[in-house]
Amino acid sequence: MLTSLRDNNGPYFPAERSDGYERGLAYGRKRSGVYMNGAELIFKTAAACGINICFANPGTTEIPLVAALDTIKSVKPVLGLFEGVCTGAADGYGRVTSAPAMTLLHLGPGLANGVANLHNARRAGTPVVNIIGEHTTWHRQNDPPLAMGIEALAGTISGWQKTVGSADSISRDMTDAVGAALSGRIATLIVPNDLQQADVSDRALPTLGPIFDAVDRAAVDKAAHALKNGRARALILGGRGCREDGLLAAARVKEATGCDLLSEGFPPYVERGAGLPQVDRIPYFPEAALSLLSKYEAVVLAGAHEPVTFFGYPGLPGRLLTEKQKKVVLCREGQDTIAALRLLAETLGAPRVSAMSKDAFAAFHRPDLPTGLLTPEKACSVIAALQPENAIIVDEGVTSSFAYWDLSFGAPRHAFLSVAGGAIGYGMPCAIGAALAAPGRKVIDVQADGSALYTVQALWTQGREGLDITTLIFSNRSYRILEMEFSRSGISAASPAARALTSLSSPEINWVEMAWGFGVPAVSVDTSEALAAEIRWSLSEGGPHLIEMRL
Amino acid sequence: MLTSLRDNNGPYFPAERSDGYERGLAYGRKRSGVYMNGAELIFKTAAACGINICFANPGTTEIPLVAALDTIKSVKPVLGLFEGVCTGAADGYGRVTSAPAMTLLHLGPGLANGVANLHNARRAGTPVVNIIGEHTTWHRQNDPPLAMGIEALAGTISGWQKTVGSADSISRDMTDAVGAALSGRIATLIVPNDLQQADVSDRALPTLGPIFDAVDRAAVDKAAHALKNGRARALILGGRGCREDGLLAAARVKEATGCDLLSEGFPPYVERGAGLPQVDRIPYFPEAALSLLSKYEAVVLAGAHEPVTFFGYPGLPGRLLTEKQKKVVLCREGQDTIAALRLLAETLGAPRVSAMSKDAFAAFHRPDLPTGLLTPEKACSVIAALQPENAIIVDEGVTSSFAYWDLSFGAPRHAFLSVAGGAIGYGMPCAIGAALAAPGRKVIDVQADGSALYTVQALWTQGREGLDITTLIFSNRSYRILEMEFSRSGISAASPAARALTSLSSPEINWVEMAWGFGVPAVSVDTSEALAAEIRWSLSEGGPHLIEMRL
Repeated sequence: MLTSLRDNNGPYFPAERSDGYERGLAYGRKRSGVYMNGAELIFKTAAACGINICFANPGTTEIPLVAALDTIKSVKPVLGLFEGVCTGAADGYGRVTSAPAMTLLHLGPGLANGVANLHNARRAGTPVVNIIGEHTTWHRQNDPPLAMGIEALAGTISGWQKTVGSADSISRDMTDAVGAALSGRIATLIVPNDLQQADVSDRALPTLGPIFDAVDRAAVDKAAHALKNGRARALILGGRGCREDGLLAAARVKEATGCDLLSEGFPPYVERGAGLPQVDRIPYFPEAALSLLSKYEAVVLAGAHEPVTFFGYPGLPGRLLTEKQKKVVLCREGQDTIAALRLLAETLGAPRVSAMSKDAFAAFHRPDLPTGLLTPEKACSVIAALQPENAIIVDEGVTSSFAYWDLSFGAPRHAFLSVAGGAIGYGMPCAIGAALAAPGRKVIDVQADGSALYTVQALWTQGREGLDITTLIFSNRSYRILEMEFSRSGISAASPAARALTSLSSPEINWVEMAWGFGVPAVSVDTSEALAAEIRWSLSEGGPHLIEMRL
Repeated sequence: MLTSLRDNNGPYFPAERSDGYERGLAYGRKRSGVYMNGAELIFKTAAACGINICFANPGTTEIPLVAALDTIKSVKPVLGLFEGVCTGAADGYGRVTSAPAMTLLHLGPGLANGVANLHNARRAGTPVVNIIGEHTTWHRQNDPPLAMGIEALAGTISGWQKTVGSADSISRDMTDAVGAALSGRIATLIVPNDLQQADVSDRALPTLGPIFDAVDRAAVDKAAHALKNGRARALILGGRGCREDGLLAAARVKEATGCDLLSEGFPPYVERGAGLPQVDRIPYFPEAALSLLSKYEAVVLAGAHEPVTFFGYPGLPGRLLTEKQKKVVLCREGQDTIAALRLLAETLGAPRVSAMSKDAFAAFHRPDLPTGLLTPEKACSVIAALQPENAIIVDEGVTSSFAYWDLSFGAPRHAFLSVAGGAIGYGMPCAIGAALAAPGRKVIDVQADGSALYTVQALWTQGREGLDITTLIFSNRSYRILEMEFSRSGISAASPAARALTSLSSPEINWVEMAWGFGVPAVSVDTSEALAAEIRWSLSEGGPHLIEMRL
């Protein structure tokens, strides 16, 4: 039941579900004489914790786990042709639902292939539970060909990790993993093959407690003081602060103090559009970000990291706020940003949302449909003009989608997901997870071509699962962001080596053939009118489609 | 100069090159007043060490390194659309030449994407030098979005690694990296962006010494004793032992002792065909491997690891040799297998190759061309019947190419490369490196479909570089090896979860459209006759082609 996992209004407790679980009570008490194996207990525990999907590309060491999926049928297996597809899909699923999906990956190399998108998920604070098969305990010492340092690898992206040491601890380990994931971390459980096969008694024991620490009253008072006084003040929203309840509380704070509302540069999941407060996004390039942020005397961070530049540029600071600017951290990791924002609004005596003027929220407004040959800006206008109510916009347009944010403030309400960790190849997999998390909502993946090629295998899973995803490829046949960064470095993008390593022409990717090759219907357009017609058709038809937008 | 790097007859010393370097002497003495930056010094040192190719997918942190490629023109940059393509290509290049290629990768996520194929390269003992850009030193502490634990990540696949701490050490660091690579290790040098930009004095200082330790006389005597006495004895060849000079020395040993010649199950690079000694390969499935190996009283390991099963299976041993079987390690890591085999032959008083009967070497023999609908065996027969002199066979056919080895003993001389670390997605990238390492030789990639999809982006680089690669896709639309392993576990491959996670039908990949989408001409065949016609055409036409073999 997806709805039981999608809870934007408060922390997620399986114990609060309507299907009979009680908080703090053990599930599935031991029935004497009934046994299952470790693999089945992992999925039984996962299911008891509310997990219902597993993005997988298993191998021989995960065979008992695959077989267990026949027994615990409430967890749906979804195959990715490459592990980066699986982990990116888990990221997308977790961002939309705030609840973890599982991944099932094969040994160290399988995990390694998924690390880049797990890095994005880690930066996004997405809950994910990875299950990694490991060689049978007694075979590990023989150093077989596929053996590698899985634990060191897992450490690069996990906020929690454990290698199962005994079949007796499997249910506890799995519950701990889910608990860690629910607090916004990547949890990785490494399970040797023989422990997957070991007989265990039937006892899935989820006793997940509250996942948030108490809000810090003193921090709230400090934030209130900073926002009330001084001339220019900003509230920077991150994490759950960008979900509807966080945004509405932030709007009340703005109403009471006149502060500006900003989001991080690459928000993991932000709800926006007509009827929600308008939030400005911190720009990517450091000069623009400094220009925006330097005007503030005081900044309050609500679930957001202190803003820093994406890269270290000579002559520019890495931190975008100076020592002189007052910075208040409203809530720390582990605290609930929404609760903190609500308490801040109360502390400030802010009016209730129902008492606020309509001007506090974005008015309905769509850009006009442009005409003629496509440009990146025109393509963004077409998308903002046509995106349906409740769309999920997955943005990996990189340089080509810069214009979209400002063009879509007044579009019908939608969610916007961005590449929080900067590792490219996130968009098409993320769209898979988003679509599976929210059936009935249209997913639009606004996608750069170079980035798309990193995990292009995602198209096949979109086709196989018949997902409602419209992929819009900005086809500029280059790593344009790198060309821009070359220019910023004073190096001509026409230099031979720069061209050799940034141009994606010769040969050009034929996106239409490629997408059909993976089983996804595709067309190519080069005018605004054709793009509009194809987007309309794709949205009305349903299912996966790819539209190459030739620039 | 590719020929200067391809040296199968002895260790590789840049000092032995014909272009003026002398062993032990510093290259490029400091010219007063001439400066370059750290990035240029890296490539200048690389070039002075004999490296002439760099498989790259750079980002903003590697811009000075890209710009440096305009200055040091002897290093050719080759773009991969995904880092696994770059690292797999470096593996292929290093296997063919015994000399390292470079990779240039972007931060932690870029390295992570390349880890699986670096794992294969590590298991193959391939020399590779990775250059990984890192954030500017002063920005690292700000934990920008793309920051992750590069060093921990590099540790999972590197035999040598260092993070450059000062521009003054760059040339030494790079020389050390190349030296480590030349001894068969993955060397990873992590270079902060500001140190790439730092002014350095012009001093590329390669003083690479001998790369092999002295052969162990006592081990040779022990091996000679083991092989002379007892009834059934085997010499298992690995590493350089599978190159021509190693094989010829092994043939002399066989002539003197009557021992069998075996290779590891997944040899990184083995030379074979008519005129070379016939070597049996240790089978993949443990029952067959045990059946082969259990008959030997004594086994000598010549550059090979002690054979173990790929996975730990209940009821079967992980080590394929028992305690009772005598095992002698002829040479350790760091020693030259060819020199050890030659000394072994001399110790045994073996005849010279020229004095040996023709029967000691495989006679020229091709299988007949089969007819009718394709099977895996028929496809292997067609390949063995048509492969040209000096072909490089890259084998990632997994279950479908099992038959090829025995069918091709008598084919014209060729090299055979296999997935030494078991991480799939190695074949198509490896073929890129092999083709660039050996212009003039035909590369035939015998490729399973599921594995090919892991790094399918490799096709684009094959197209861009116009490489002489014929990719033969065994299209069985499943992870057949997993289906076999399911059966071995007593689980029906028809179980719903097993089917969901092993079947690659619905939708079927359209390989022809996919390959054309990446710019590679492609056809699909389902008969032996059509396959023969298309292979002939592809080989005569030259350049990259893909042939889907529908099974």
